Amino acid sequence: MSDLQDLTRKLQKQTDSKIVLLVADGLGGLPIEKGGGTELETAKTPNMDALAKEGTLGLSTPVLPGISPGSGPGHLGLFGYDPLEYQIGRGVLEALGIDFELTPDDVAIRGNFCSIDAEGNISDRRAGRVKSEIASKLCEKLDQIEIPGVEVFVRHVKEYRLVIVFRGDGLGGNVNDTDPQRTGVPPLAPVGADGPSQRTAEICTQFLEQAREILKDDQPANLLTMRGIDMKPNVPPLSEVYGLRAGAIAVYPMYRGLARLVSMDILDAGQTLDDQMARLKAAWDDYDFFFVHFKYTDSTGEDGNFPEKVRRTEELDACIPKIMALNPDCLIVTGDHSTPAKMKSHSWHPVPVLLWSDLARPDACDSFGETQCITGGLGQFPAKYLMGFAMAHAGKLEKFGA
Amino acid sequence: MSDLQDLTRKLQKQTDSKIVLLVADGLGGLPIEKGGGTELETAKTPNMDALAKEGTLGLSTPVLPGISPGSGPGHLGLFGYDPLEYQIGRGVLEALGIDFELTPDDVAIRGNFCSIDAEGNISDRRAGRVKSEIASKLCEKLDQIEIPGVEVFVRHVKEYRLVIVFRGDGLGGNVNDTDPQRTGVPPLAPVGADGPSQRTAEICTQFLEQAREILKDDQPANLLTMRGIDMKPNVPPLSEVYGLRAGAIAVYPMYRGLARLVSMDILDAGQTLDDQMARLKAAWDDYDFFFVHFKYTDSTGEDGNFPEKVRRTEELDACIPKIMALNPDCLIVTGDHSTPAKMKSHSWHPVPVLLWSDLARPDACDSFGETQCITGGLGQFPAKYLMGFAMAHAGKLEKFGA
Repeated sequence: MSDLQDLTRKLQKQTDSKIVLLVADGLGGLPIEKGGGTELETAKTPNMDALAKEGTLGLSTPVLPGISPGSGPGHLGLFGYDPLEYQIGRGVLEALGIDFELTPDDVAIRGNFCSIDAEGNISDRRAGRVKSEIASKLCEKLDQIEIPGVEVFVRHVKEYRLVIVFRGDGLGGNVNDTDPQRTGVPPLAPVGADGPSQRTAEICTQFLEQAREILKDDQPANLLTMRGIDMKPNVPPLSEVYGLRAGAIAVYPMYRGLARLVSMDILDAGQTLDDQMARLKAAWDDYDFFFVHFKYTDSTGEDGNFPEKVRRTEELDACIPKIMALNPDCLIVTGDHSTPAKMKSHSWHPVPVLLWSDLARPDACDSFGETQCITGGLGQFPAKYLMGFAMAHAGKLEKFGA
Repeated sequence: MSDLQDLTRKLQKQTDSKIVLLVADGLGGLPIEKGGGTELETAKTPNMDALAKEGTLGLSTPVLPGISPGSGPGHLGLFGYDPLEYQIGRGVLEALGIDFELTPDDVAIRGNFCSIDAEGNISDRRAGRVKSEIASKLCEKLDQIEIPGVEVFVRHVKEYRLVIVFRGDGLGGNVNDTDPQRTGVPPLAPVGADGPSQRTAEICTQFLEQAREILKDDQPANLLTMRGIDMKPNVPPLSEVYGLRAGAIAVYPMYRGLARLVSMDILDAGQTLDDQMARLKAAWDDYDFFFVHFKYTDSTGEDGNFPEKVRRTEELDACIPKIMALNPDCLIVTGDHSTPAKMKSHSWHPVPVLLWSDLARPDACDSFGETQCITGGLGQFPAKYLMGFAMAHAGKLEKFGA
């Protein structure tokens, strides 16, 4: 629990004011050519520029300087949770990513189909990148596995990837990966580091024994390894920490899952930004806080497609008037991390933040871009403090001390 | 004890150099009109602008991003104490505000005169906002209350507000408010959360029984409720933490009280800024550090009076040459928090800081205002680090490490 959340617990105030957090995934970028602008600076964004002129800019650091975050820590930071305090295991993230609703009793595991040879050594760690249509049928077979004392769920993700969930009392999440990270050796045995995790390890062992029998004729996917064995972190609800009724409008399941982790209501987002805007309008009276997620600034960055990331940024800009027409008290446009097309990956570069509110103190910035954000009034700050700014600018915090 | 104070304890150095901390209460502001300047930016401040050109600017965050501080946390931060570590209860602040000198054995309580009906239920939580001339006489009667083992002090504040202090060995400050925050119910019984606080609660109970008898014919003020029951925080003296002989020149008792909390000497401030400047000159040789407090940038902000806050800022600017004539080694002009006239209240917006010293590294700023402060050389920093800058620029800190 961070220091700021200690305060927001005490100082939170119920009001009718509305906060919109518009997250353009991977928003921050880099110039492709020396002397050029970033994706955001190259995009024509008249609506965001107008807000930048009236509001205030800044840069947020998702985790720590130099650290490139995954989607989990990136979003937890935006929601006001210290991503170093609340860590999300690979298995949990994989389950969130397929809309699987985890309970506090669940252990989630990322599975990889693999190939083993006659000696039981791994010959291919990804089972020849087995096709999804085959792997999904194998998952259905594995989903039939029964182990006394726990419920077993097996769900296919994509190609060789799957999710296994064990649900039962007294399980722990502190079990090693069974993937040895190389071929020519057998999978590692699961071992629990404490009592409850030893119980989980025994269940993993039973599951793997049954799986070996079930899959024995399914070369190349004749076994699986387990990774990221973990329980979901015990994240206090947004409603408790900030007193907010929060709704999430996200097209992709991973981001719905992250919103679910902090106990937001998950609203039907449809498939397009227009659908999302329609949902925002329809749900306007029901919530104080809206998390709206836009994926394509990240995926185009990951693809290394600079012009397409520019185009997607312009698409985002075009939805701004629809949000402003609802009269939010505080609108924040930002990302969960940077994804420069130049790098084709998430990066550590600080993330542009645009905060508009009638109570924002203006700065000298007149357009939304990384270079202007450097001299923005919010300064450079840890992402976990963004919620403090949001709450304050919406008049949802009492004074601290007399 | 904060990290910086760990260091200043070890590295402090006695010198003849002088530091002046000029606090314009509530200094930071907001534009009233879109595209306009803040109060500080609108004010004509040629003297501070000249210092800004030679010195360096910055912005301080009193507590945490988004948190609007009261006067207590605001000033503790300026004096170098983490306001989250040293919290000041309402009763203590009320006692400080009437120049009552608290000892470490004192429990201070904010009292509110209230009206109770024949059934003992509260019918008015503020006793019809009883007039000060009546309430002060009632306080004199209550001041006669005797309780074995403790000294009792009752002092009138204003209208229905009073301060009660119990002085004795082994008291605790962890007692609930007796004000039920609504009418039609009796006051709550005081309950202590630990041994020493149980003793305090018993004394509160005895006091309230006697008060009920004494006030029984004094409708509408025929009882009182107790709030903010607390002992003063154990704040280490400024002399020990920084090795400073510090003098406070504040017209208003609250700020003398806050200075007393960190063991400054309280100097006679007179009534006007001119009086304060005369005192500063007269005491110049006796101290290393002067805290000079100017109230009216806050009170005009609280009133929502933008032009008057501008005028008061100009009044402050006019005193700068008198300070500079004394040849301070380091002069800091800042506030304890922002009080934008637009909001008529304290706010979370970071606070403009101007630091002048012959050793200040210049920045590109050439006038003192919020927008310029964003790009000032001190950056944006937690207020509790300001004393580090002050000490350094006055040559009062040795090198850390070899």
